[in-house]
Amino acid sequence: MGRVGIIGVGHSRFGKRSDASLRELAFEAYREALDDAEIDTSDIDASLVCSATHYDKQRSPAGVVAEYLGLNPAPTFNVEAACASSAVGLRTAWALVNSRLHDIVAIVGVQKMTELSSDEIQELMGRAGDVMWESPFGTTMPAYYAMYANAHMARYGTTQEQMALVPVKNRKYGTKNPKAMFQKPVEIEEVLKSRMVSYPLKLYDCCANADGAACILVASRNKVQKLSDRPVWIAGLGLASSPMSLAGRTGPMTSFQVTKNAAKEAYKMARVLPRDVDIAEVHDSFSITEILNYEDLGFARPGTGAKLLEREETDLGGRIPVNIDGGLIAKGHPVGATGAGQITALVKQLRGEAGDLQVDNAKVGLAQNIGGIGMYAAVTILRG
Amino acid sequence: MGRVGIIGVGHSRFGKRSDASLRELAFEAYREALDDAEIDTSDIDASLVCSATHYDKQRSPAGVVAEYLGLNPAPTFNVEAACASSAVGLRTAWALVNSRLHDIVAIVGVQKMTELSSDEIQELMGRAGDVMWESPFGTTMPAYYAMYANAHMARYGTTQEQMALVPVKNRKYGTKNPKAMFQKPVEIEEVLKSRMVSYPLKLYDCCANADGAACILVASRNKVQKLSDRPVWIAGLGLASSPMSLAGRTGPMTSFQVTKNAAKEAYKMARVLPRDVDIAEVHDSFSITEILNYEDLGFARPGTGAKLLEREETDLGGRIPVNIDGGLIAKGHPVGATGAGQITALVKQLRGEAGDLQVDNAKVGLAQNIGGIGMYAAVTILRG
Repeated sequence: MGRVGIIGVGHSRFGKRSDASLRELAFEAYREALDDAEIDTSDIDASLVCSATHYDKQRSPAGVVAEYLGLNPAPTFNVEAACASSAVGLRTAWALVNSRLHDIVAIVGVQKMTELSSDEIQELMGRAGDVMWESPFGTTMPAYYAMYANAHMARYGTTQEQMALVPVKNRKYGTKNPKAMFQKPVEIEEVLKSRMVSYPLKLYDCCANADGAACILVASRNKVQKLSDRPVWIAGLGLASSPMSLAGRTGPMTSFQVTKNAAKEAYKMARVLPRDVDIAEVHDSFSITEILNYEDLGFARPGTGAKLLEREETDLGGRIPVNIDGGLIAKGHPVGATGAGQITALVKQLRGEAGDLQVDNAKVGLAQNIGGIGMYAAVTILRG
Repeated sequence: MGRVGIIGVGHSRFGKRSDASLRELAFEAYREALDDAEIDTSDIDASLVCSATHYDKQRSPAGVVAEYLGLNPAPTFNVEAACASSAVGLRTAWALVNSRLHDIVAIVGVQKMTELSSDEIQELMGRAGDVMWESPFGTTMPAYYAMYANAHMARYGTTQEQMALVPVKNRKYGTKNPKAMFQKPVEIEEVLKSRMVSYPLKLYDCCANADGAACILVASRNKVQKLSDRPVWIAGLGLASSPMSLAGRTGPMTSFQVTKNAAKEAYKMARVLPRDVDIAEVHDSFSITEILNYEDLGFARPGTGAKLLEREETDLGGRIPVNIDGGLIAKGHPVGATGAGQITALVKQLRGEAGDLQVDNAKVGLAQNIGGIGMYAAVTILRG
């Protein structure tokens, strides 16, 4: 039993959601979380809205989201850490509850991106890198991660065929997730022949910009015991930072030190080792990212991440199933919602409610996000 | 003695700072806070960067600020609540420390606004109101607050002459604050004759957009006792929300319910009453806002706020000196930095270090921010 538990989760359909505004997406996830927890809006003591800014005209979205969800006059504010926003929101909510400011907090991750063109989004994503020394020179997220991919290929001999196994796996599971953006599987050949985005990353190596929301309801131990007969406990929370600029970093570009630091903290707090993790959700913004994450989280030794894919160790039925809900690559990546979406998938697994995708006897789940080009990383460990 | 204390504060010069970038402004405040606390960057366990977005090209500024301040690999993230951003950052840091995730946390409020034109800023400010039902119809911050001014005038007979006493008072104290944007006093006649912005608010009734930063270093009780011989304790923290849209609110537009709710929580937590407050920093985004705040914080009965100005009760030497550092009206309003700037002024007062502006025997200080058009309000109570 932990000090703070998750009593409800909700997840909107991710994708091009021209049918729903920012606030409506938030409501879709929030309503589902309330139903899941079997509580009412009047039970919520505070809300955190997690959304990366500039993709939407609405500034300070917590104001409009809290209003639309009927959460006034409870405190609300915005927490942002690029692609790790709602993972950081969960950690912040843990602190708010654990310090006894609040008993029940809603974390609402939400993003509305697809009203912008892909070019506009790429330009904005680049500006989550250093705008003085990097983004003016054309760095975009695919380009940033492509540099890591090239370094890993050069140092360890990782191949494009191996990388292609990530979308093949994740899109396969996406076909069983009705909330995923992409419901069709892909073959290795399709990945390899898809349009080059930034060498060696091709279209199917990349996750897609999406609209969507996910919501987590956390509660103090007392409230959890009163309200929930199937709680999931927050066991470990790691958060770390790295210099935003690549030039400010040391060490080879074959791993993210920021993930290693966050993982170390989370494992220590949860008192578990990598081998104790039964199921994981890792940040597969690009195929190479999932492979690096295997290594940085301690699931594989440096340079050997791709072997896990070849041996199907991260598949359902394997040693440590990863991104069995489809990951960012199949689900889409509505930036602020992604972390909460991962937690939602883990909670269902740890409760044994994942249906066809259920991992047998899943007790310990791990979620990991990289924010931007690795200036933030968050690792969360849950216990069922 | 409290559970979390402030061990250092720093404050950049506010104003048009074409000499400094966002990260350099942050450094200016941070360096001063480190010197004030007599600690080093290696002592800081985490940082929160508080900045309202869209005014600067840099997205996710925590990444670049933490890097520039040398704060990697410690956790960092962005906290935003419009004009209340760094007040909310302080409350969030309190929770992080009080829940034992961290011992020493830096709250860095920073904003770089003046590279944009005044029109661009007004448009962006409007988009911190509801972009679906309000900002497309031309609501700007002066227009929003002007509606509150008109309602107060109609209901209580408050006059433009009375409102003018706010800038007269605050600009008078600004002349003694070398970090204030405006160092010249103004007379009532000048205020009344200044250019109309949105009836009845004229140019000198309005605070100015500014660049600037302020930094607060908070620590756990143990660390405070080891490191500081003049700590200021965080005694009360109130945060509340209201619907972002004016149409979603009930009650007359002669007060901000959101401030009343936040104040109630802060007074209760600190176990003080309004009459116990020795010095206050309140959100004088406009002259009318300071008057409403007097009433909403319980310093004056509804409708009588302006009387405090006429009787000089909120002047230095009066019953409850307010905005003795010049307030937003003299200092300028670099949105994300404003809350931390208020705390900086209170800390100096509670330590007895405010020089010419020192309030005798100041023991209890209160800071209040309204975020946007009142979708957020934060009230902080400190004890020297």
